[in-house]
Amino acid sequence: MTQSELSNVYRDYIACLNSQDWPALERFVHEDVKHNGAQLGISGYRRMLERDFSEIPDLSFHVELLVSNPPYIASRLRFNCTPKGKFLGLAVCGRRVSFAENVFYEFRGEKIAEVWSVIDKGAIEAQLVPPSD
Amino acid sequence: MTQSELSNVYRDYIACLNSQDWPALERFVHEDVKHNGAQLGISGYRRMLERDFSEIPDLSFHVELLVSNPPYIASRLRFNCTPKGKFLGLAVCGRRVSFAENVFYEFRGEKIAEVWSVIDKGAIEAQLVPPSD
Repeated sequence: MTQSELSNVYRDYIACLNSQDWPALERFVHEDVKHNGAQLGISGYRRMLERDFSEIPDLSFHVELLVSNPPYIASRLRFNCTPKGKFLGLAVCGRRVSFAENVFYEFRGEKIAEVWSVIDKGAIEAQLVPPSD
Repeated sequence: MTQSELSNVYRDYIACLNSQDWPALERFVHEDVKHNGAQLGISGYRRMLERDFSEIPDLSFHVELLVSNPPYIASRLRFNCTPKGKFLGLAVCGRRVSFAENVFYEFRGEKIAEVWSVIDKGAIEAQLVPPSD
């Protein structure tokens, strides 16, 4: 695939997430997918995403920056959402937070085979009232 | 610049950091550089790096994954180091920690003009003894 073809596949994957079209996930995610070193497989990957949407009902993925060089994609995602309870161990509890995720994907063919993700936890902490300790 | 030329410039930049060759920094960093939205300029950028090396004497940047698509570079950096005191607000205090930074760079010519960095704070927390609270 060319750079632009891979970018298009990736944007279709993000649209799939945003529409929570879970049956379509297998078009974009390899059955043996790994996420941050964990061999989730596509079923575990789907469970992770379903849990995210359950805990963050207004979750939406917005691509801020995309760097494509097959078989790799690097994406800076922006979130502006209201997690219901704890998120990354932080008591967000319905407050609106904005944060970024910088994430790399390795594709095998047209499918995501491995993901290395880092979420900007410090940015979320800065938006919350300091805990009393 | 081609993808491989930009990658080579970036690897020279990382070598510059690892050798703490601060006079050479201006070859790689634009005088008006922004870092995570802050207009640091090259002098502020250098101060940030010098402070990092002061607080983490064994700091070393290791490129794990590099995605180049001019004028952008995305890099996954790996650190294996022993911050002397607090790091990202965490009391590391001389313990050895391993963590990643997923970071995007926008180049203007051969120089870094803007940086969007996220450090995996959660991975560091997981390596520290839980605080008593």
